[in-house]
Amino acid sequence: MNQWVYSFGNGQADGNASMRNLLGGKGANLAEMSSLGLPVPPGFTLTSDVCDYYTSNDNAYPNALKAQVAAALFKVEAVMGLRFGEAENTLLVSVRSGARVSMPGMMDTVLNLGLNDKTVRGLAKVSGDERFAYDSYRRFLQMYGDVVLGVEHHMFEDLLEDHKSQKGIQLDTDMESNDWRDLVDDYKKMVQKELGSPFPQDPHEQLWGAIDAVFGSWMNHRAKTYRMLYDIPEELGTAVNVQAMVFGNMGNDCATGVAFTRDPANGRNEYYGEYLVNAQGEDVVAGIRTPQPLNITSKHENLPDLLSMEERMPEIYTQLLDVRTCLEQHYKDMQDIEFTVQKNSLWMLQTRNGARTIKASLKIATDMVEEGLINKAEAILRIDPSQLDQILHPTLDSNKEREILGIGLPASPGAASGRVVFNSADAAIWAERGNNVILVRTETSPEDIGGMHVAKGIVTTRGGMTSHAAVIARGMGTPCVSGVGSLIIDYDKKNLTVLGQTIKEGEIITIDGTSGEVIKGEVPTIQPEFSDDLAKLMQWVDEIRTMDVRANVENAADARTAREFGAEGIGLCRTEHMFFDAERIIHVREMIVAKDENSRRIALDKLLPFHRQDFVDLFTIMDGLPVTIRLLDPPLHEFLPTSEVDIANLAKIAGIKVCDVKACAAQLYEFNPMLGHRGCRLGITHPEIYEMQARAIFEAASDVIADGIKVKPEVMISLVAIKSEFDIFKKLVENTAEMVKNERSQEIDFTIGAMIELPRAVLRAGEIAETAEFFSFGTNDLTQTALGLSRDDSSSFIQIYCEKSILETDPFVSIDIDGVGELVKIAVDSGRAVRENMMLGVCGEHGGDPASIEFFHKAGLDYVSCSPYRVPIARLAAAQAALGLRIRDST
Amino acid sequence: MNQWVYSFGNGQADGNASMRNLLGGKGANLAEMSSLGLPVPPGFTLTSDVCDYYTSNDNAYPNALKAQVAAALFKVEAVMGLRFGEAENTLLVSVRSGARVSMPGMMDTVLNLGLNDKTVRGLAKVSGDERFAYDSYRRFLQMYGDVVLGVEHHMFEDLLEDHKSQKGIQLDTDMESNDWRDLVDDYKKMVQKELGSPFPQDPHEQLWGAIDAVFGSWMNHRAKTYRMLYDIPEELGTAVNVQAMVFGNMGNDCATGVAFTRDPANGRNEYYGEYLVNAQGEDVVAGIRTPQPLNITSKHENLPDLLSMEERMPEIYTQLLDVRTCLEQHYKDMQDIEFTVQKNSLWMLQTRNGARTIKASLKIATDMVEEGLINKAEAILRIDPSQLDQILHPTLDSNKEREILGIGLPASPGAASGRVVFNSADAAIWAERGNNVILVRTETSPEDIGGMHVAKGIVTTRGGMTSHAAVIARGMGTPCVSGVGSLIIDYDKKNLTVLGQTIKEGEIITIDGTSGEVIKGEVPTIQPEFSDDLAKLMQWVDEIRTMDVRANVENAADARTAREFGAEGIGLCRTEHMFFDAERIIHVREMIVAKDENSRRIALDKLLPFHRQDFVDLFTIMDGLPVTIRLLDPPLHEFLPTSEVDIANLAKIAGIKVCDVKACAAQLYEFNPMLGHRGCRLGITHPEIYEMQARAIFEAASDVIADGIKVKPEVMISLVAIKSEFDIFKKLVENTAEMVKNERSQEIDFTIGAMIELPRAVLRAGEIAETAEFFSFGTNDLTQTALGLSRDDSSSFIQIYCEKSILETDPFVSIDIDGVGELVKIAVDSGRAVRENMMLGVCGEHGGDPASIEFFHKAGLDYVSCSPYRVPIARLAAAQAALGLRIRDST
Repeated sequence: MNQWVYSFGNGQADGNASMRNLLGGKGANLAEMSSLGLPVPPGFTLTSDVCDYYTSNDNAYPNALKAQVAAALFKVEAVMGLRFGEAENTLLVSVRSGARVSMPGMMDTVLNLGLNDKTVRGLAKVSGDERFAYDSYRRFLQMYGDVVLGVEHHMFEDLLEDHKSQKGIQLDTDMESNDWRDLVDDYKKMVQKELGSPFPQDPHEQLWGAIDAVFGSWMNHRAKTYRMLYDIPEELGTAVNVQAMVFGNMGNDCATGVAFTRDPANGRNEYYGEYLVNAQGEDVVAGIRTPQPLNITSKHENLPDLLSMEERMPEIYTQLLDVRTCLEQHYKDMQDIEFTVQKNSLWMLQTRNGARTIKASLKIATDMVEEGLINKAEAILRIDPSQLDQILHPTLDSNKEREILGIGLPASPGAASGRVVFNSADAAIWAERGNNVILVRTETSPEDIGGMHVAKGIVTTRGGMTSHAAVIARGMGTPCVSGVGSLIIDYDKKNLTVLGQTIKEGEIITIDGTSGEVIKGEVPTIQPEFSDDLAKLMQWVDEIRTMDVRANVENAADARTAREFGAEGIGLCRTEHMFFDAERIIHVREMIVAKDENSRRIALDKLLPFHRQDFVDLFTIMDGLPVTIRLLDPPLHEFLPTSEVDIANLAKIAGIKVCDVKACAAQLYEFNPMLGHRGCRLGITHPEIYEMQARAIFEAASDVIADGIKVKPEVMISLVAIKSEFDIFKKLVENTAEMVKNERSQEIDFTIGAMIELPRAVLRAGEIAETAEFFSFGTNDLTQTALGLSRDDSSSFIQIYCEKSILETDPFVSIDIDGVGELVKIAVDSGRAVRENMMLGVCGEHGGDPASIEFFHKAGLDYVSCSPYRVPIARLAAAQAALGLRIRDST
Repeated sequence: MNQWVYSFGNGQADGNASMRNLLGGKGANLAEMSSLGLPVPPGFTLTSDVCDYYTSNDNAYPNALKAQVAAALFKVEAVMGLRFGEAENTLLVSVRSGARVSMPGMMDTVLNLGLNDKTVRGLAKVSGDERFAYDSYRRFLQMYGDVVLGVEHHMFEDLLEDHKSQKGIQLDTDMESNDWRDLVDDYKKMVQKELGSPFPQDPHEQLWGAIDAVFGSWMNHRAKTYRMLYDIPEELGTAVNVQAMVFGNMGNDCATGVAFTRDPANGRNEYYGEYLVNAQGEDVVAGIRTPQPLNITSKHENLPDLLSMEERMPEIYTQLLDVRTCLEQHYKDMQDIEFTVQKNSLWMLQTRNGARTIKASLKIATDMVEEGLINKAEAILRIDPSQLDQILHPTLDSNKEREILGIGLPASPGAASGRVVFNSADAAIWAERGNNVILVRTETSPEDIGGMHVAKGIVTTRGGMTSHAAVIARGMGTPCVSGVGSLIIDYDKKNLTVLGQTIKEGEIITIDGTSGEVIKGEVPTIQPEFSDDLAKLMQWVDEIRTMDVRANVENAADARTAREFGAEGIGLCRTEHMFFDAERIIHVREMIVAKDENSRRIALDKLLPFHRQDFVDLFTIMDGLPVTIRLLDPPLHEFLPTSEVDIANLAKIAGIKVCDVKACAAQLYEFNPMLGHRGCRLGITHPEIYEMQARAIFEAASDVIADGIKVKPEVMISLVAIKSEFDIFKKLVENTAEMVKNERSQEIDFTIGAMIELPRAVLRAGEIAETAEFFSFGTNDLTQTALGLSRDDSSSFIQIYCEKSILETDPFVSIDIDGVGELVKIAVDSGRAVRENMMLGVCGEHGGDPASIEFFHKAGLDYVSCSPYRVPIARLAAAQAALGLRIRDST
């Protein structure tokens, strides 16, 4: 016969903590605590299989259920020495839902079930407190009436208010015994009137009504929507927990409290909690009375006089200390517990893994390794990589008032204050004067790189989490809020309008890239501290992970940051970023508007020394680590000036007419630049650009080798679709290397590879691997092309897609495993089939996303590359992936 | 022992016409003619295997070669009764290269080989014509000196000019015997001086020198480049033909001529040719003398007095008639022949399949079927589908002078004259006044559709063969020239500047969309005639092909054209094209700028009657044939006005502010509209648009069914990437169908399918096929996404890619089989694995391209859909594909 009901209590239990699917989280842990010998009020759990049966059989129960419930109830009665429904020594129970994951919209809790016009008198007698008994009864009527019988909550509240105003009572605490009794009568009459039948007096009828309500609520509209949104399988079902009531509000020898076995804020190995004497659990949370500290160490400096439980109820506290030890030894994690003291007896009502800050997370995990509670692998799996982001960036002081101007997307974490500027040139001017600046743009383009570099923060009014601004800002570690649609920028007047007020250039704003807030004026920021715990954890992480983590950087400062954060090389150096410096961009533009190859070469020659120095810097900082350099990628028009002043300036320097500059820009204009004349296509039509870049790389390599530095450039082109594109590029790079080698008499070790970012390249990956020595997956562009989705244009409908569950997450944030991931796998297999030990990496934004990193690990990549500030996150995620366990499943 | 040398002549031959690879085209046909008993001057062919040996063995020959050549030469001597190198009765030979395909850059021909200071005198004696002998000798010296010895051609020409000016001679024909003899001396001295050694007098040395030169030229730079460009395998090699010389210039009983066994211009079954008495073959071609007609029927009306060979040499002509019959019966195709008459003896020098116009092609093929020479399948394979295009469109009268203003890409075939206009509004105005107009734009966008519809021709200054203008123009059958970069448009002044002149609005130009020419003024056009031959061939084509051919149309006129051209339904009705009519676009715009769903629905309600009528028309015309309707595809911003007037107008009608219209446009702006908020994404965010469209379809279907017309709409959405996108769409369409069915009490049979045009959809095709009832491949967008290549931006570098052989053809013109084709195959397999008899078609531009059609046939598609004017081409190509033979290999 199926076991539909699992009992617990009295140091025993049918179930245990591993049976979360069957018993729900709450039921499983109650069983576990009971088995551990902790004082759990006895009870039983109707399994989620009952739910499944109920929903599949038109709300009918298995035949055996009634008998099993009766038997379980009998055990509870025996343990408690009370009888359910008996006038005296009456057993009251709570009925709670308990799915594997808690779910809004479901029936939650009914307390004090079993009270009726008879038993309430018994309760009054036993407790010696009539007011308590009738208060409990009216609470039950209200709760049961609302959630089980469907009488609207406000009907009860209205009657209470009526009563209070009739009697001139202000506070519930001023209600006396007879007030509650009168209200109980009013409630019952109202229910009778509303439902056409009386409030059920039979405790068994009450019990089954509550059980029906829990199971029924599993299939209600809100719960269904929630499951759809969060991808929770319907067949999971909910369990129902029926448990003997214990009361913390039966007098001054009663209490209720919550505690964490360690400090959830800083992780210190200190018992941390609060309690209230003569109170119910909900009172601690509700904030009507100020809770008292659990122990002397928990005392808040502002409230030194509140008596702690350690002082007030030392015996109980000693028991709680034992509970703490027991639970931590058993669960091997910090626990969040609830307890009630009824007449000097301790009852444990709940235990679960406690929520904690990332700082606490790190401390607890590393401490527990040292305490021998867990091993390093377990410690690593305890940390949510995406939470790490919080401690790698400055945060706003949460104690300060904020006047929020608008909220956008949290595009790049961290907080910053500064003076508003609206373009790159003004950003430079204000920054040179020593101001912090916040660059505010409708959207950014590569032309804004200069301004973005000097800005302390970036705001855009359009674009999503993966817009140009967001991607670049994350790469630079600069806070960014994108898509703040409520800000209206007037570039001509150099101001922005929002909420009816105007912010002019030079006024100070603060942005929080972690929350997406844009705030008026200055809010102090708190700098992150890099704890020893993090360092310790990262060391373990590095021992375990098999995938390397590199960084996407193109300047010395970022390269240094990357190394500090543990990057093992550069996975993507986007050379175009090196072209935007004021003293360089003009030569780039000269090159673009040049009439013929010869003039182009003259302009390129001016760029060569700058470019070479860039590589000297990177090679020197990365000493010995691999450096993957992607030659020029964006279409040339992205470098051309748009302002009249800049156009005139370019015409003057290039010695051509203004109209010719404009004609050149018009000729280069593209309807879809993403699919345009860029990447290796530039190398085919303008080989002299790539020649100059290759020369800069190899000359720089020669220079640093001469200084005793080890260097192994990995030269890469983007947007390969056809094998011969790559072959032409490879030949060009090899020829340039050969020339430099002959000029400098210096051997240089290098490899040449292809970015795989087009579906066609994936299909022909085997062919391309015949000559390409490595592949680096550009999963941004692969996502754009595989899904036909523009990163810069999709935020408007991607959000709707996620809301409608068409997409689980934004595919630019976390890799689309079924589509883009499939392409990655095809290319990995085809590439390695031709070139067995081919080096394979990923350099798209996904390289810093934990879920994507897990996928890349499984796909067999050698490394991921991400922005410097995400390197620690990627290292941790790579280690978790190597451990072969999904952190998402372990919570 | 290997046979390196193949003899022919005297009614015999070692080889035959099937040995083109070994003997080359010329050698194989000479052997074949010889075997047929035709009078071929005897000779022999050194096989292409010799070439292979020669190039792989450092220019050495197989050991056996010399002996085999000597033996073959002996046979030639025997047949001709002459001896090679003997002073009297000397045998002269020609040495010609002969690869499988003729190839520029290779050594072509050396004539009169065997002449030297002795044999020239023998030739003079035998011919009785000393001038002829020395003229032949000096021609040999010059030809051999140039192509074998490498003395530059002009050195010989200079000496000839010197001689003529010294002697006061104007024309070569005035040169007398001693003049040629003196020149021979000068030539020899010059060669001695240039080379440091005398001109070889030994005929055998001459022969091997010429053979070396032919084989050596196979590997010269130009030949290699050509092979690379045209993808001709190097290992193919060339053969060398050595053949006895016969002379058409030995007196008035000699002649030379060329003929076609049928008229190559119109295909009539009439012998057509030209000849010259006492002349060499090259004289017929050179145009120094006017050739005479072969026969009385070949006489040109302008030159009635030229005596035909039929009249002048009736016996020879009778022999030639027999040759004609023999060759046509044998080759079963129209032949292009060359012959020489030496002293009243006919010698056949060449036969090959003759080039012909498409008109002649059709007539010859159909005639030959009726004559029993070939069967229908062979006739079908004889026609080049892409040539058909020429007779489906008007052409320019080639006899009229043209002042060419510029040349662009031949984007849509046909010719037209009309008044220049520069925008849609002006196009409408001029057209309403009864003028033909030519719309000239920098590039077109969907907003120009109205103007494109009224224009007789379209010119753009940017964009390629697959730009918006080109695609739409081809769809409408309107001639279009795209990318005429030399035209500079001034929209404000309404004029264009080119070659220093200005053409104003209203001036007349002519365009030839087949050649790409833009011509000043009016050039008369010639309307195409639809011959009975074409009709006959198309009937056979339809019997053989297995793939259906549908048309891409969206209006009644095009639908009628499509049916006339044999379309078997509509494969793609792009509903957005129905929105651009002046009376509709305003409601479309109203809908777009609407503030909420309700206002959008009000605007959509106004569109519904128009839309319904469109479908009524299409269903009525297509009575019973399938009609595939694609719901709205382009991003909404493409419909918004850009001119201030139109913006103001829209603001007025929509009752909103001008700045709100502009704000809406700014909000909808996309960086990469191709990857933007379009296709099914619109249906997710604005379901009411698709609801209106579905309603229009089903209401129209109900209406026409009531009139006794059969209809089966195939409703389709574009840009599906994710199964649930399709499922949401399917549900919406089904719900709408259900509603209309209930309202009208009319059952409608319909299917719902997906356009497959994104790589992700290909990867998930199996899943999508679970609910999608058909797939239609949008290979345009699939090409754009698979290759990351914007159709509108790529023309600039695609051309360079083709020149550099990175691409064989523009992948938007002919499907990229290795990339996009691979994706099509994956989706076909996955789709059919789930839904066995799934209807699969293609509706991209490739549906009208013969090479692509062959691929689609192999991939197992049910139909292709193309623009109405390409339907006959597609039908023919589909039949050829069904015949399982590649027309490209049979020529």
